[in-house]
Amino acid sequence: MRTIDWDAERNELVMIDQRLLPGRLELVRLHSAQETAQAIRDMTVRGAPAIGAAAAFGLALAAFQSNAPDVPSFKVEIQTAAGILRASRPTAVNLFWAIERMLRVMNDSSLPVDRMRERLVSEAQAIADEDVATNLRMAELGAELIEDGDTIIHHCNTGALATVDWGTALGCIRRAHEQGKRVHVLVDETRPRLQGARLTAWELQQYGIPYEIITDNMAGHFLRRGEVQKVFFGADRVAANGDVANKIGTYMLALAAHSNHVPVYAVAPSSTVDLNLATGAEIPIEERSPAEVLSIQFEGEQVTPSGAKARNPAFDVTPNELISAIVTEKGVIRSPYSLHLPRVLRG
Amino acid sequence: MRTIDWDAERNELVMIDQRLLPGRLELVRLHSAQETAQAIRDMTVRGAPAIGAAAAFGLALAAFQSNAPDVPSFKVEIQTAAGILRASRPTAVNLFWAIERMLRVMNDSSLPVDRMRERLVSEAQAIADEDVATNLRMAELGAELIEDGDTIIHHCNTGALATVDWGTALGCIRRAHEQGKRVHVLVDETRPRLQGARLTAWELQQYGIPYEIITDNMAGHFLRRGEVQKVFFGADRVAANGDVANKIGTYMLALAAHSNHVPVYAVAPSSTVDLNLATGAEIPIEERSPAEVLSIQFEGEQVTPSGAKARNPAFDVTPNELISAIVTEKGVIRSPYSLHLPRVLRG
Repeated sequence: MRTIDWDAERNELVMIDQRLLPGRLELVRLHSAQETAQAIRDMTVRGAPAIGAAAAFGLALAAFQSNAPDVPSFKVEIQTAAGILRASRPTAVNLFWAIERMLRVMNDSSLPVDRMRERLVSEAQAIADEDVATNLRMAELGAELIEDGDTIIHHCNTGALATVDWGTALGCIRRAHEQGKRVHVLVDETRPRLQGARLTAWELQQYGIPYEIITDNMAGHFLRRGEVQKVFFGADRVAANGDVANKIGTYMLALAAHSNHVPVYAVAPSSTVDLNLATGAEIPIEERSPAEVLSIQFEGEQVTPSGAKARNPAFDVTPNELISAIVTEKGVIRSPYSLHLPRVLRG
Repeated sequence: MRTIDWDAERNELVMIDQRLLPGRLELVRLHSAQETAQAIRDMTVRGAPAIGAAAAFGLALAAFQSNAPDVPSFKVEIQTAAGILRASRPTAVNLFWAIERMLRVMNDSSLPVDRMRERLVSEAQAIADEDVATNLRMAELGAELIEDGDTIIHHCNTGALATVDWGTALGCIRRAHEQGKRVHVLVDETRPRLQGARLTAWELQQYGIPYEIITDNMAGHFLRRGEVQKVFFGADRVAANGDVANKIGTYMLALAAHSNHVPVYAVAPSSTVDLNLATGAEIPIEERSPAEVLSIQFEGEQVTPSGAKARNPAFDVTPNELISAIVTEKGVIRSPYSLHLPRVLRG
């Protein structure tokens, strides 16, 4: 089962509702770009590659919903849907990349409306299929960086659930495990939304990979004690100089690893690299609702005093000097990133 | 109202049950050293200075419970109670310091049993009273380090609740606020037990000091963006070289602050300094139950998959090179700590 898939009989988008895991594994069916944008915004689907594919399928839904009588008005409707999807979340560039790719296909084509619908669905399907192939390639490359006996700290969720299937950083760990390497994962719980404690722990349990959950603030302790050999995470956007925007907490983790001479690997498809941005300072950082920070309960009790305020930046930027390598499907890229990123990505 | 106090009419120890805040403010009454050890272990009372005072009062309770017919058997009973209290938590040295001080008073005295009881109660009371005076002195010294307009990241709870009254690191912030300096506190929620989100937020609300709660993993983001001018926290044990054991997460916070040239202040009474330990590597680090990590709920749902495992070190060690100064009641001590800590503390 894929995290996100197209139902070709009903022309619907089907996805796992990630907000309900690990308690319940439920599928939701979406019928419009608006519903897809909402699912991205409320994190029914999350993970940079998964929301890229979701946005592409969202445009396919818009194509099927359209009653446009001619190609020009069809294109206006799809452009409008693209605007709605673009506004769903700002940081992961895969969203914009997938939308641009879909619009390019549409604008380059001179097909009639009904054929255009099929063309957009097949392009979205191609994006989804390529994501899986890309992840398998990254897994092979990333697994080579993992040694038998490694303890690895992993941040957020970058597994099958964060992608169409297989995963990015967690995919590398999964591949190393399949190769017979003994790996142990310290799973950052990843506050505030706890993607590590909820989703990564659930995936690792299914793969039979030994793990222990830690709170994010414990990583430094284990790194400083020499109990960790590698740090792995994904990325939501990589700037041209190799600065990496990823789930909040990545920067502190990478800093603690780097200070303790533990290698730090970011794993992301080339669609996550944004060569238009010179540095990570230009990456827009989403600030989400304070409710996500304030709404946790501990031993059944509401934690925060009523009226409490909170901040909630969803991502941070890790400067390139803390990152040992960026694993893409096109190769493992090392510093100086400004030189190697364009070279490898542009072929 | 003090966090912990002696009821001289009933010879009972009265303390705020900190596990219930901010939802409920309830007092518990303790009658024995065993009950006191349990209250320390289960964190009914927490915070290094508060558990020091609690242990001293726990020995006073043992003295009142004793039916020993003579001084030698009384002393054996108190020594036994001391052993039970010593075993409650391993990291904060104030616990051991307070117990040793109580035993020294007992062993140096030749009073009969009934007078010895009174002497032990008055010594515990002196420890509690001195804690308040010490905190007020540290608050004056620490407030001088805070400038008008500062945004301060604060870790865990170091306020009145962590001490007999007033607080250590939070006491400095409170004093600066009283002096009319505009301060804004970013409150680390402090996983896993959320002392920041629960207790520090509650105290700051009462003092009228503006604050926002952040998850621990967000501190680096705000530090890197230049939005923070100071970092303040307490300490559970300070080694002779200035290495500081404090609540888990302190090391990653101090590292992120230091990397961004933001001053880092540890505030702790001299009773927290353990000159017997050369470095922080010798400080015993308590590992608490995995349930504390696993038992949080988010939006009413259990977060972790059933059968999930977790690690739970309750403290970490921050190396002295990351700490700009240690504020004690005897003065503000700066590097080289190996030189200045013994000099200032031994007068």
